[in-house]
Amino acid sequence: MVRWEPGAPERLQQAALELFASRGFEQTTATEIAQSVGLTERTFFRHFSDKREVLFHGQQVFVQAFLDGVQSAPASASPIEVVAAALRSAATFFPDERRPQSRMRQAVIDQNSALQERELQKLASLAGTLADALRARGVDELAAALAAQSGVTVFAIAFAQWIREGEQRSLADITAKVLRELLTLTRKGTSARL
Amino acid sequence: MVRWEPGAPERLQQAALELFASRGFEQTTATEIAQSVGLTERTFFRHFSDKREVLFHGQQVFVQAFLDGVQSAPASASPIEVVAAALRSAATFFPDERRPQSRMRQAVIDQNSALQERELQKLASLAGTLADALRARGVDELAAALAAQSGVTVFAIAFAQWIREGEQRSLADITAKVLRELLTLTRKGTSARL
Repeated sequence: MVRWEPGAPERLQQAALELFASRGFEQTTATEIAQSVGLTERTFFRHFSDKREVLFHGQQVFVQAFLDGVQSAPASASPIEVVAAALRSAATFFPDERRPQSRMRQAVIDQNSALQERELQKLASLAGTLADALRARGVDELAAALAAQSGVTVFAIAFAQWIREGEQRSLADITAKVLRELLTLTRKGTSARL
Repeated sequence: MVRWEPGAPERLQQAALELFASRGFEQTTATEIAQSVGLTERTFFRHFSDKREVLFHGQQVFVQAFLDGVQSAPASASPIEVVAAALRSAATFFPDERRPQSRMRQAVIDQNSALQERELQKLASLAGTLADALRARGVDELAAALAAQSGVTVFAIAFAQWIREGEQRSLADITAKVLRELLTLTRKGTSARL
Protein backbone atom coordinates (compact mmCIF):
# COMPACT_ATOMS: atom_id res chain seq x y z
CA MET A 1 0.00 0.00 0.00
CA VAL A 2 1.33 3.43 -0.95
CA ARG A 3 0.84 5.95 1.82
CA TRP A 4 -0.07 9.43 0.62
CA GLU A 5 2.48 12.02 1.69
CA PRO A 6 1.01 15.51 1.77
CA GLY A 7 3.27 17.90 -0.15
CA ALA A 8 6.09 15.37 -0.29
CA PRO A 9 7.63 16.65 -3.56
CA GLU A 10 7.72 20.23 -2.27
CA ARG A 11 9.19 19.19 1.09
CA LEU A 12 11.80 17.05 -0.65
CA GLN A 13 12.63 19.85 -3.04
CA GLN A 14 13.14 22.41 -0.29
CA ALA A 15 15.22 19.96 1.77
CA ALA A 16 17.32 19.03 -1.27
CA LEU A 17 18.03 22.68 -2.09
CA GLU A 18 19.20 23.37 1.44
CA LEU A 19 21.42 20.28 1.58
CA PHE A 20 22.87 20.91 -1.90
CA ALA A 21 23.61 24.51 -0.95
CA SER A 22 25.22 23.69 2.40
CA ARG A 23 27.05 20.41 1.65
CA GLY A 24 27.33 20.46 -2.11
CA PHE A 25 25.33 18.59 -4.74
CA GLU A 26 27.80 15.70 -5.12
CA GLN A 27 28.02 15.14 -1.37
CA THR A 28 24.29 14.76 -0.82
CA THR A 29 22.39 11.50 -1.39
CA ALA A 30 18.71 10.96 -2.11
CA THR A 31 18.43 9.02 1.15
CA GLU A 32 19.81 11.96 3.14
CA ILE A 33 17.37 14.32 1.48
CA ALA A 34 14.44 12.05 2.30
CA GLN A 35 15.57 11.43 5.88
CA SER A 36 16.06 15.14 6.58
CA VAL A 37 12.28 15.60 6.24
CA GLY A 38 11.31 12.27 7.80
CA LEU A 39 10.58 10.47 4.53
CA THR A 40 12.03 7.29 3.03
CA GLU A 41 14.30 6.86 0.04
CA ARG A 42 11.40 5.00 -1.57
CA THR A 43 9.17 8.06 -1.29
CA PHE A 44 11.95 10.11 -2.83
CA PHE A 45 12.15 7.85 -5.88
CA ARG A 46 8.38 7.76 -6.20
CA HIS A 47 8.55 11.47 -7.02
CA PHE A 48 11.95 11.93 -8.68
CA SER A 49 13.94 9.67 -10.99
CA ASP A 50 17.26 10.92 -9.56
CA LYS A 51 18.61 13.70 -7.37
CA ARG A 52 19.26 15.95 -10.40
CA GLU A 53 15.52 15.92 -11.15
CA VAL A 54 14.68 17.53 -7.80
CA LEU A 55 16.13 20.74 -9.18
CA PHE A 56 13.98 20.57 -12.29
CA HIS A 57 10.70 19.67 -10.65
CA GLY A 58 7.89 21.85 -11.96
CA GLN A 59 9.33 22.18 -15.48
CA GLN A 60 5.96 21.22 -16.98
CA VAL A 61 4.13 24.00 -15.12
CA PHE A 62 6.90 26.41 -16.10
CA VAL A 63 6.54 25.53 -19.80
CA GLN A 64 2.76 25.76 -19.48
CA ALA A 65 3.09 29.36 -18.25
CA PHE A 66 4.76 30.25 -21.58
CA LEU A 67 2.10 28.34 -23.54
CA ASP A 68 -0.72 30.12 -21.69
CA GLY A 69 0.84 33.39 -22.80
CA VAL A 70 0.97 32.20 -26.42
CA GLN A 71 -2.73 31.29 -26.20
CA SER A 72 -3.62 34.70 -24.78
CA ALA A 73 -2.12 36.59 -27.75
CA PRO A 74 -4.63 37.86 -30.33
CA ALA A 75 -4.68 36.09 -33.72
CA SER A 76 -3.28 39.23 -35.34
CA ALA A 77 -0.15 39.28 -33.13
CA SER A 78 3.23 39.03 -34.88
CA PRO A 79 5.53 36.17 -33.81
CA ILE A 80 7.54 38.50 -31.56
CA GLU A 81 4.34 39.89 -30.03
CA VAL A 82 3.27 36.32 -29.27
CA VAL A 83 6.64 35.68 -27.65
CA ALA A 84 6.27 38.89 -25.63
CA ALA A 85 2.92 37.59 -24.33
CA ALA A 86 4.57 34.26 -23.44
CA LEU A 87 7.30 36.09 -21.53
CA ARG A 88 4.77 38.19 -19.59
CA SER A 89 2.94 35.04 -18.61
CA ALA A 90 6.15 33.21 -17.65
CA ALA A 91 7.18 36.10 -15.39
CA THR A 92 4.09 35.54 -13.23
CA PHE A 93 5.54 32.09 -12.45
CA PHE A 94 8.37 33.85 -10.57
CA PRO A 95 6.90 36.33 -8.08
CA ASP A 96 9.41 38.24 -5.96
CA GLU A 97 8.94 35.92 -2.96
CA ARG A 98 10.41 33.12 -5.07
CA ARG A 99 13.62 35.03 -5.68
CA PRO A 100 15.65 33.66 -2.70
CA GLN A 101 14.81 30.06 -3.64
CA SER A 102 15.63 30.67 -7.32
CA ARG A 103 18.92 32.24 -6.29
CA MET A 104 19.81 29.26 -4.10
CA ARG A 105 18.90 26.81 -6.89
CA GLN A 106 21.05 28.68 -9.40
CA ALA A 107 24.04 28.69 -7.04
CA VAL A 108 23.81 24.90 -6.86
CA ILE A 109 23.52 24.55 -10.63
CA ASP A 110 26.43 26.93 -11.27
CA GLN A 111 28.72 24.61 -9.32
CA ASN A 112 28.06 21.44 -11.29
CA SER A 113 28.57 21.07 -15.02
CA ALA A 114 26.13 18.14 -15.35
CA LEU A 115 23.40 20.31 -13.82
CA GLN A 116 24.29 23.19 -16.13
CA GLU A 117 23.98 20.86 -19.11
CA ARG A 118 20.60 19.65 -17.88
CA GLU A 119 19.45 23.25 -17.43
CA LEU A 120 20.49 24.09 -21.01
CA GLN A 121 18.66 21.01 -22.25
CA LYS A 122 15.48 22.12 -20.46
CA LEU A 123 15.73 25.57 -22.04
CA ALA A 124 16.30 24.02 -25.47
CA SER A 125 13.24 21.84 -24.95
CA LEU A 126 11.24 24.94 -23.97
CA ALA A 127 12.35 26.64 -27.20
CA GLY A 128 11.19 23.59 -29.18
CA THR A 129 7.79 23.58 -27.48
CA LEU A 130 7.36 27.33 -28.05
CA ALA A 131 8.32 26.95 -31.72
CA ASP A 132 5.67 24.21 -32.08
CA ALA A 133 3.06 26.50 -30.53
CA LEU A 134 3.99 29.29 -32.96
CA ARG A 135 3.80 26.93 -35.93
CA ALA A 136 0.35 25.83 -34.74
CA ARG A 137 -0.67 29.51 -35.14
CA GLY A 138 0.49 29.48 -38.76
CA VAL A 139 3.97 30.97 -38.29
CA ASP A 140 6.41 29.46 -40.80
CA GLU A 141 9.10 27.12 -39.57
CA LEU A 142 12.12 29.43 -39.67
CA ALA A 143 10.32 32.40 -38.10
CA ALA A 144 8.87 30.12 -35.41
CA ALA A 145 12.30 28.68 -34.52
CA LEU A 146 13.93 32.13 -34.39
CA ALA A 147 11.15 33.81 -32.42
CA ALA A 148 10.95 30.93 -29.93
CA GLN A 149 14.70 30.80 -29.40
CA SER A 150 14.89 34.59 -29.06
CA GLY A 151 12.17 34.40 -26.41
CA VAL A 152 14.16 31.83 -24.46
CA THR A 153 17.30 33.98 -24.78
CA VAL A 154 15.45 37.00 -23.40
CA PHE A 155 14.04 34.90 -20.58
CA ALA A 156 17.42 33.40 -19.63
CA ILE A 157 19.23 36.75 -19.64
CA ALA A 158 16.40 38.44 -17.70
CA PHE A 159 16.25 35.60 -15.18
CA ALA A 160 20.01 35.76 -14.55
CA GLN A 161 19.62 39.48 -13.86
CA TRP A 162 16.57 38.95 -11.62
CA ILE A 163 18.48 36.65 -9.25
CA ARG A 164 21.56 38.88 -8.97
CA GLU A 165 22.36 39.99 -5.45
CA GLY A 166 20.72 43.34 -4.78
CA GLU A 167 18.37 43.30 -7.80
CA GLN A 168 14.99 44.79 -6.83
CA ARG A 169 13.02 44.94 -10.09
CA SER A 170 10.41 42.27 -10.87
CA LEU A 171 11.14 39.61 -13.47
CA ALA A 172 8.33 41.07 -15.61
CA ASP A 173 10.02 44.49 -15.67
CA ILE A 174 13.46 43.06 -16.44
CA THR A 175 12.10 40.78 -19.17
CA ALA A 176 10.32 43.71 -20.86
CA LYS A 177 13.54 45.73 -20.77
CA VAL A 178 15.65 42.91 -22.22
CA LEU A 179 13.14 42.31 -25.01
CA ARG A 180 13.09 46.02 -25.90
CA GLU A 181 16.90 45.99 -25.95
CA LEU A 182 16.86 43.03 -28.37
CA LEU A 183 14.51 44.92 -30.71
CA THR A 184 16.64 48.07 -30.52
CA LEU A 185 19.78 46.08 -31.17
CA THR A 186 18.46 44.30 -34.25
CA ARG A 187 17.07 47.54 -35.65
CA LYS A 188 20.53 49.08 -35.42
CA GLY A 189 21.91 46.05 -37.21
CA THR A 190 20.10 46.81 -40.44
CA SER A 191 21.97 49.91 -41.49
CA ALA A 192 24.95 48.27 -43.19
CA ARG A 193 25.79 45.17 -45.19
CA LEU A 194 24.99 41.97 -43.37
CA MET B 1 59.12 7.92 -24.73
CA VAL B 2 56.04 9.19 -26.51
CA ARG B 3 56.00 8.19 -30.15
CA TRP B 4 54.62 10.86 -32.47
CA GLU B 5 51.54 9.62 -34.33
CA PRO B 6 50.99 11.59 -37.53
CA GLY B 7 47.39 12.81 -37.69
CA ALA B 8 46.33 10.55 -34.82
CA PRO B 9 43.51 12.81 -33.56
CA GLU B 10 41.99 13.10 -37.03
CA ARG B 11 42.28 9.35 -37.69
CA LEU B 12 40.73 8.57 -34.31
CA GLN B 13 37.97 11.07 -34.90
CA GLN B 14 37.07 9.66 -38.31
CA ALA B 15 37.16 6.08 -36.97
CA ALA B 16 35.05 7.03 -33.95
CA LEU B 17 32.41 8.70 -36.12
CA GLU B 18 32.12 5.62 -38.31
CA LEU B 19 31.89 3.24 -35.35
CA PHE B 20 29.40 5.44 -33.47
CA ALA B 21 27.25 5.69 -36.60
CA SER B 22 27.31 1.97 -37.40
CA ARG B 23 27.23 0.40 -33.90
CA GLY B 24 25.91 3.21 -31.75
CA PHE B 25 27.74 5.54 -29.38
CA GLU B 26 27.06 3.50 -26.23
CA GLN B 27 28.23 0.26 -27.82
CA THR B 28 31.64 1.58 -28.90
CA THR B 29 34.64 1.72 -26.58
CA ALA B 30 37.72 3.94 -26.80
CA THR B 31 39.85 0.81 -27.21
CA GLU B 32 37.82 -0.32 -30.22
CA ILE B 33 38.16 3.08 -31.82
CA ALA B 34 41.93 3.07 -31.33
CA GLN B 35 42.33 -0.52 -32.54
CA SER B 36 40.28 0.09 -35.67
CA VAL B 37 43.02 2.43 -36.92
CA GLY B 38 45.94 0.45 -35.48
CA LEU B 39 46.52 2.68 -32.46
CA THR B 40 46.49 1.92 -28.75
CA GLU B 41 44.01 2.95 -26.08
CA ARG B 42 46.85 4.94 -24.56
CA THR B 43 47.21 7.00 -27.72
CA PHE B 44 43.46 7.59 -27.65
CA PHE B 45 43.58 8.98 -24.12
CA ARG B 46 46.62 11.10 -24.95
CA HIS B 47 44.37 13.07 -27.33
CA PHE B 48 40.90 12.82 -25.77
CA SER B 49 39.75 12.75 -22.15
CA ASP B 50 36.81 10.44 -23.00
CA LYS B 51 34.93 9.13 -26.01
CA ARG B 52 32.42 12.01 -25.89
CA GLU B 53 35.28 14.45 -26.49
CA VAL B 54 36.11 12.87 -29.85
CA LEU B 55 32.92 14.42 -31.17
CA PHE B 56 33.87 17.86 -29.91
CA HIS B 57 37.48 17.89 -31.04
CA GLY B 58 38.30 21.14 -32.82
CA GLN B 59 35.97 23.27 -30.68
CA GLN B 60 38.78 25.76 -30.06
CA VAL B 61 39.41 26.29 -33.78
CA PHE B 62 35.66 26.59 -34.32
CA VAL B 63 35.36 29.31 -31.66
CA GLN B 64 38.43 31.04 -33.09
CA ALA B 65 36.68 31.28 -36.48
CA PHE B 66 33.95 33.38 -34.83
CA LEU B 67 36.53 35.51 -32.99
CA ASP B 68 38.46 36.15 -36.23
CA GLY B 69 35.22 37.48 -37.68
CA VAL B 70 34.71 39.78 -34.70
CA GLN B 71 38.25 41.10 -35.17
CA SER B 72 37.67 41.74 -38.87
CA ALA B 73 34.67 44.03 -38.24
CA PRO B 74 35.35 47.78 -38.48
CA ALA B 75 35.32 49.77 -35.23
CA SER B 76 32.13 51.52 -36.39
CA ALA B 77 30.17 48.25 -36.77
CA SER B 78 27.03 47.83 -34.63
CA PRO B 79 26.90 44.74 -32.34
CA ILE B 80 24.71 42.87 -34.86
CA GLU B 81 27.08 43.80 -37.70
CA VAL B 82 29.97 42.40 -35.65
CA VAL B 83 27.97 39.20 -35.10
CA ALA B 84 27.25 39.04 -38.84
CA ALA B 85 31.00 39.21 -39.50
CA ALA B 86 31.57 36.43 -36.96
CA LEU B 87 28.96 34.27 -38.68
CA ARG B 88 30.52 34.84 -42.11
CA SER B 89 33.89 33.80 -40.73
CA ALA B 90 32.44 30.74 -38.95
CA ALA B 91 30.79 29.56 -42.16
CA THR B 92 34.21 29.22 -43.80
CA PHE B 93 34.97 26.59 -41.15
CA PHE B 94 32.32 24.36 -42.78
CA PRO B 95 32.98 24.12 -46.51
CA ASP B 96 30.58 21.92 -48.49
CA GLU B 97 32.97 18.96 -48.51
CA ARG B 98 32.57 18.79 -44.74
CA ARG B 99 28.82 18.38 -44.97
CA PRO B 100 28.68 14.54 -45.01
CA GLN B 101 30.91 14.32 -41.92
CA SER B 102 28.90 17.00 -40.09
CA ARG B 103 25.70 15.15 -40.96
CA MET B 104 27.08 11.86 -39.62
CA ARG B 105 28.25 13.55 -36.42
CA GLN B 106 24.86 15.14 -35.84
CA ALA B 107 23.08 11.80 -36.33
CA VAL B 108 25.22 10.33 -33.53
CA ILE B 109 24.55 13.29 -31.23
CA ASP B 110 20.80 13.22 -31.92
CA GLN B 111 20.64 9.67 -30.54
CA ASN B 112 22.22 10.36 -27.17
CA SER B 113 20.93 12.86 -24.63
CA ALA B 114 24.28 13.23 -22.86
CA LEU B 115 25.87 14.22 -26.18
CA GLN B 116 23.05 16.68 -26.88
CA GLU B 117 23.62 18.26 -23.48
CA ARG B 118 27.35 18.55 -24.18
CA GLU B 119 26.61 20.14 -27.57
CA LEU B 120 24.34 22.71 -25.91
CA GLN B 121 27.02 23.43 -23.35
CA LYS B 122 29.58 24.05 -26.11
CA LEU B 123 27.19 26.47 -27.84
CA ALA B 124 26.52 28.26 -24.54
CA SER B 125 30.26 28.56 -24.00
CA LEU B 126 30.63 29.97 -27.54
CA ALA B 127 27.96 32.58 -26.72
CA GLY B 128 29.87 33.53 -23.58
CA THR B 129 33.15 33.92 -25.48
CA LEU B 130 31.45 36.01 -28.19
CA ALA B 131 29.83 38.24 -25.56
CA ASP B 132 33.26 38.79 -23.98
CA ALA B 133 34.68 39.76 -27.38
CA LEU B 134 31.84 42.25 -27.91
CA ARG B 135 32.36 43.76 -24.47
CA ALA B 136 36.04 44.13 -25.26
CA ARG B 137 34.93 46.35 -28.18
CA GLY B 138 32.99 48.58 -25.77
CA VAL B 139 29.51 47.05 -26.24
CA ASP B 140 27.56 47.20 -22.96
CA GLU B 141 26.88 44.01 -21.06
CA LEU B 142 23.22 43.45 -21.95
CA ALA B 143 23.66 44.25 -25.65
CA ALA B 144 26.73 42.02 -25.79
CA ALA B 145 24.90 39.07 -24.22
CA LEU B 146 21.89 39.47 -26.51
CA ALA B 147 23.88 39.96 -29.71
CA ALA B 148 26.17 37.03 -28.92
CA GLN B 149 23.32 34.68 -28.05
CA SER B 150 21.39 35.76 -31.14
CA GLY B 151 24.43 34.99 -33.26
CA VAL B 152 24.65 31.50 -31.78
CA THR B 153 20.91 31.00 -32.39
CA VAL B 154 21.31 32.01 -36.03
CA PHE B 155 24.31 29.72 -36.38
CA ALA B 156 22.56 26.71 -34.79
CA ILE B 157 19.40 27.08 -36.89
CA ALA B 158 21.41 27.62 -40.09
CA PHE B 159 23.68 24.67 -39.33
CA ALA B 160 20.70 22.34 -38.75
CA GLN B 161 19.34 23.43 -42.14
CA TRP B 162 22.74 23.02 -43.84
CA ILE B 163 23.02 19.35 -42.86
CA ARG B 164 19.46 18.44 -43.88
CA GLU B 165 19.24 15.69 -46.49
CA GLY B 166 19.07 17.26 -49.95
CA GLU B 167 20.19 20.77 -48.87
CA GLN B 168 22.49 22.27 -51.54
CA ARG B 169 23.10 25.85 -50.38
CA SER B 170 26.34 26.76 -48.60
CA LEU B 171 26.33 27.42 -44.86
CA ALA B 172 27.30 31.05 -45.60
CA ASP B 173 24.18 31.54 -47.74
CA ILE B 174 21.87 29.88 -45.23
CA THR B 175 23.35 31.82 -42.30
CA ALA B 176 22.86 35.14 -44.13
CA LYS B 177 19.24 34.23 -44.87
CA VAL B 178 18.51 33.21 -41.25
CA LEU B 179 20.08 36.41 -39.92
CA ARG B 180 18.01 38.54 -42.34
CA GLU B 181 14.89 36.67 -41.19
CA LEU B 182 15.72 37.45 -37.55
CA LEU B 183 16.03 41.14 -38.36
CA THR B 184 12.75 41.15 -40.32
CA LEU B 185 11.00 39.32 -37.50
CA THR B 186 12.12 41.70 -34.77
CA ARG B 187 11.22 44.71 -36.91
CA LYS B 188 7.67 43.37 -37.25
CA GLY B 189 7.56 42.95 -33.49
CA THR B 190 7.74 46.64 -32.78
CA SER B 191 4.32 47.67 -34.08
CA ALA B 192 2.27 46.88 -30.97
CA ARG B 193 2.63 46.93 -27.21
CA LEU B 194 5.43 44.69 -26.01
